[in-house]
Amino acid sequence: MADHPDTPLLDQVPTPEALRRLRPEQLTQLAAEVRQEMVSAVSVTGGHLGAGLGVVELTVALHYVFDTPRDTLIWDVGHQAYPHKILTGRRERMRSLRQGGGLSGFTRRAESEYDPFGAAHSSTSISAALGFAVANKLADRPGKAIAVIGDGAMSAGMAYEAMNNAGQAGNRLVVILNDNDMSIAPPVGGLSASLARIVSSRPFLSLRDVMKKVARRLPRPLHDAARKTDEFARGMTMGGTLFEELGFYYVGPIDGHNLDHLVPVLENVRDAGEGPILVHVVTQKGKGYASAEAAADKYHAVQKFDVVSGVQAKAPPGPPSYTNVFADALIAEATRDETVCAITAAMPGGTGLDKFAKAFPTRSFDVGIAEQHAVTFAAGLAAQGQRPFCAIYSTFLQRAYDQVVHDVAIQNLPVRFAIDRAGLVGADGATHAGSFDVTYLASLPNFVVMAAADEAELTHMVHTMALHDSGPIAVRYPRGNGTGVAIPAPQALPIGKGRIVREGKKVAILSLGTRLEEALKAADRLDAQGLSTTVADLRFAKPLDEALIRRLLTTHEVAVTVEEGSVGGLGAHVLTLASDEGLIDGGLRLRTLRLPDAFQDHDKPEKQYAEAGLDADGIVASVLTALRRNSVGVAEARA
Amino acid sequence: MADHPDTPLLDQVPTPEALRRLRPEQLTQLAAEVRQEMVSAVSVTGGHLGAGLGVVELTVALHYVFDTPRDTLIWDVGHQAYPHKILTGRRERMRSLRQGGGLSGFTRRAESEYDPFGAAHSSTSISAALGFAVANKLADRPGKAIAVIGDGAMSAGMAYEAMNNAGQAGNRLVVILNDNDMSIAPPVGGLSASLARIVSSRPFLSLRDVMKKVARRLPRPLHDAARKTDEFARGMTMGGTLFEELGFYYVGPIDGHNLDHLVPVLENVRDAGEGPILVHVVTQKGKGYASAEAAADKYHAVQKFDVVSGVQAKAPPGPPSYTNVFADALIAEATRDETVCAITAAMPGGTGLDKFAKAFPTRSFDVGIAEQHAVTFAAGLAAQGQRPFCAIYSTFLQRAYDQVVHDVAIQNLPVRFAIDRAGLVGADGATHAGSFDVTYLASLPNFVVMAAADEAELTHMVHTMALHDSGPIAVRYPRGNGTGVAIPAPQALPIGKGRIVREGKKVAILSLGTRLEEALKAADRLDAQGLSTTVADLRFAKPLDEALIRRLLTTHEVAVTVEEGSVGGLGAHVLTLASDEGLIDGGLRLRTLRLPDAFQDHDKPEKQYAEAGLDADGIVASVLTALRRNSVGVAEARA
Repeated sequence: MADHPDTPLLDQVPTPEALRRLRPEQLTQLAAEVRQEMVSAVSVTGGHLGAGLGVVELTVALHYVFDTPRDTLIWDVGHQAYPHKILTGRRERMRSLRQGGGLSGFTRRAESEYDPFGAAHSSTSISAALGFAVANKLADRPGKAIAVIGDGAMSAGMAYEAMNNAGQAGNRLVVILNDNDMSIAPPVGGLSASLARIVSSRPFLSLRDVMKKVARRLPRPLHDAARKTDEFARGMTMGGTLFEELGFYYVGPIDGHNLDHLVPVLENVRDAGEGPILVHVVTQKGKGYASAEAAADKYHAVQKFDVVSGVQAKAPPGPPSYTNVFADALIAEATRDETVCAITAAMPGGTGLDKFAKAFPTRSFDVGIAEQHAVTFAAGLAAQGQRPFCAIYSTFLQRAYDQVVHDVAIQNLPVRFAIDRAGLVGADGATHAGSFDVTYLASLPNFVVMAAADEAELTHMVHTMALHDSGPIAVRYPRGNGTGVAIPAPQALPIGKGRIVREGKKVAILSLGTRLEEALKAADRLDAQGLSTTVADLRFAKPLDEALIRRLLTTHEVAVTVEEGSVGGLGAHVLTLASDEGLIDGGLRLRTLRLPDAFQDHDKPEKQYAEAGLDADGIVASVLTALRRNSVGVAEARA
Repeated sequence: MADHPDTPLLDQVPTPEALRRLRPEQLTQLAAEVRQEMVSAVSVTGGHLGAGLGVVELTVALHYVFDTPRDTLIWDVGHQAYPHKILTGRRERMRSLRQGGGLSGFTRRAESEYDPFGAAHSSTSISAALGFAVANKLADRPGKAIAVIGDGAMSAGMAYEAMNNAGQAGNRLVVILNDNDMSIAPPVGGLSASLARIVSSRPFLSLRDVMKKVARRLPRPLHDAARKTDEFARGMTMGGTLFEELGFYYVGPIDGHNLDHLVPVLENVRDAGEGPILVHVVTQKGKGYASAEAAADKYHAVQKFDVVSGVQAKAPPGPPSYTNVFADALIAEATRDETVCAITAAMPGGTGLDKFAKAFPTRSFDVGIAEQHAVTFAAGLAAQGQRPFCAIYSTFLQRAYDQVVHDVAIQNLPVRFAIDRAGLVGADGATHAGSFDVTYLASLPNFVVMAAADEAELTHMVHTMALHDSGPIAVRYPRGNGTGVAIPAPQALPIGKGRIVREGKKVAILSLGTRLEEALKAADRLDAQGLSTTVADLRFAKPLDEALIRRLLTTHEVAVTVEEGSVGGLGAHVLTLASDEGLIDGGLRLRTLRLPDAFQDHDKPEKQYAEAGLDADGIVASVLTALRRNSVGVAEARA
């Protein structure tokens, strides 16, 4: 198989230093070998493929022209940085990508000096690069900062905030706009249309054009001589791109797969005396690997696959994903109620809203990578009588936290939040984990916060949300597949009421969300040890089912809460209730199991759960420790 | 005095309906009377003056032209909406502005049907208006949505995200850009420069120009006839404004104080068949009140003042504000260490960084209303060896929560957060309260979270932050003045160590932040009742001083935590520690005092504290209740 392709030139290029010793005419071959190597490695590991394939030539050119790592190269999002990893000393570890202990699927400071700033969420690169550029300026140190950002990422407000501030960096900042007319889904909005107009209305800039165009940006002595030819080049610009309005010098578009153009253009940009400069590079996602080029999603993220056929390993047949269950449930609600509509921030596939959009195209809104806008837009819809569902990953909803507080919670508007990827996420690691949503939502007045224990519960909760008009309401559910339970006809759940799943006498497990399965396993084991165990699915982190919790805490010897979230969430709220009501005054063996106070590295989910103590083993151990402590007596505990 | 000016025309205009029955030539007089009324009211109450004065004519024109409240008019930020309040049935209550039980200083849904969407944080209006417009479209209802947004607010990413999505609203959306070249401070960045170029390079658009310009936007029959004149008008546009790049039809600039231009222009815009349209209106902050026009800050926010002289009531002499103490402390650190630099998001005065900028102009960065960028920019600076202090109000830091998590905490970068206005804020109300920062920061791995108990502590903490290079660190401090303690030479505090302020035996009060004063008062009263009371200032919400807390909880009969923040903060962390360690197993009388689970309305701070139970009375009551409960016995508590 193609596991280790023949890469004679790449074999001689272990570092960017070595790359910079090549002759320009060797770079095309190098790029071809990097591409082969990358396809080969990802065929074994799975991961992000299309984005990396699109920037192979750009990666080679950037390391060739700029003095990395002294010049800092920052890849926005970071999932397109596989070629960068191959060229910066991590080639041998590529087959460990996204595995426990292996390379991250994103850029990461801890991994390499060539990753000056890690990323995984979109649109941070210009702000970060500006920080590096200004720090160099303050310290009077040489060094450019180069941000490479996709056109999709440009829809996020923070990219604009950074561009609006870029003037202060002068020629220390270069922004490469990697325009592949596609982020994860096709980009949306006015900026995207504007870029398309530019690309369709003019030929790629040639070396000669760019030399003229950048001429007036050259250091002084060259400047005056070049002025005349520059006049001609000026005529070529569109005039008034958004970037020019914000104070950038705009260069482009450039063919991002043509190294004969890329290298001299970047050299010109590097040597320009003024700035900041935005270079508009046009690339093709999936470039150079036929199966990826042919696929609708350009192999954005793939399973292991066969290099020759491009056929991806199929996931073993199993229960539907929570994402799919949510989509089906929402479609049912929208069928019943014509005011139900849905909003996604550039994740139609990931949230299941692609399916919803097919069923209800006029009631589905993809706003692009723009979570802040998504939430306040939803608040406006709700204020005017719609029933909007905002479907956003837990980790990305963090981008809209202030809008959740200020526009939704304070105004008590019935926006429905469908929070996918809540909890640990396996191979995507800490940046994508949905660890904090219960903590940051359940502390907000007016909010109702639910977690689905399985796909049947999710169906009920989506129905409950559709009917809940008195204020904001959220449901969280994890990445991955459901438990395989039958999907029932949806029922409205009473707000703030949990349920007893199994009744026992000695131990109470208060579970929130899909850890319920492990809680039940733990209960079986505890029962087998003579510790009769109750398991409750609390359903609501807010409002708490106070009556149920009071009863469980006061009628069992030990109680543990179980949640897939950080400190400050369910456990904290149950403890606070127990304290407020004085339940702890006379002694209460209550423990709260939660995510650890550490960002957990990417790994297999089951390993992450074990590390967090959130599997059956961890629950049983916690109960037994609490009981043991009790049998030893309070005096010692206080010692 | 000018308390009730002579306003014969305004007296006949109780509602926008009545306003719309006036003849156009009466509007100038009405505007003059609204201005007088507003100056008079604010001279009694204090509040935001300059912004409202700048939009008097615009407010009159908007209500005259549009069919409010069926057309929804959304004021960005809302502090410029005093003329709007006067004209929408709230005139009689204007002298209750910002008082307990009185009118809010911002727009507010609960207050009037003419406030369809409340605001107080900047830059939400376009997203919200788009929600209204799209909801009307979905329901096939008439009704336009008009967002009025300042040029300063345009620097925020969410405004851009919304503009990028506005195309879908068609002619249902109108954005009024209120360009006064000044938000709270002069605006910064590329967009601001671009607007200035437009305004300086061309005369105001006249009615005739606008009619031509908007002609092709008219409904069909009129369209073809108008095409020819439109060609001429097109020639007048700048071409390529940022708004046009994003898909808006740009109209302007218009003199925002000339009702003869404003009204017909807005009528044209209202009747245009296509959209969305952005109307660029140029106004003067403080317009029409000489004292405001002459002031550098245009009387942005004022104390009570004398209408004739413009002289504001002086705050009684007292200790310096926390903001000032922070600024002085930071200047001292920057003097000692040349890598110390500071970032503000458009609040140089509010954060004290104006003072810092005078001392260190090259090391001070005002990025505009752009908190997301501010934080990631700081992260970039930190990654490249600077020691950046991000000075942002607690409530506004919510805008950058994801950047705090993703760019700072996960990468463990030593960004220093100076969190002003933490806790309750009196007259500014719920939208400006800093209630959640301890909850949302102390749940993050790697973070150090401090709260200053007084201005001496703040000085030590700023020094501690400057020295802390191993990860992110934050200090929170409240709005208002310190306690008057002497400012000592700064000392580095040991991370995660609290201090005992007074030692007792029976009751322990664990305080975080400036409620310490009330805790000490409470201790005096408890002592007087024979309840010997220890008071600790924990200093750190994370990491907790576990040894100190363990000792206090196990050696006192009752312990209460006191903090000016929501559930999930210090109290939750102390309870979690007590639970993790089994301290609660044998009985623990621990209570957590915190902000209530409700958004507290604007009022005098002392009333807000009393309502929250966070004054000495509340602390004493909580202790006594806990003790009583104890004496009654556990059985009853469990009943």
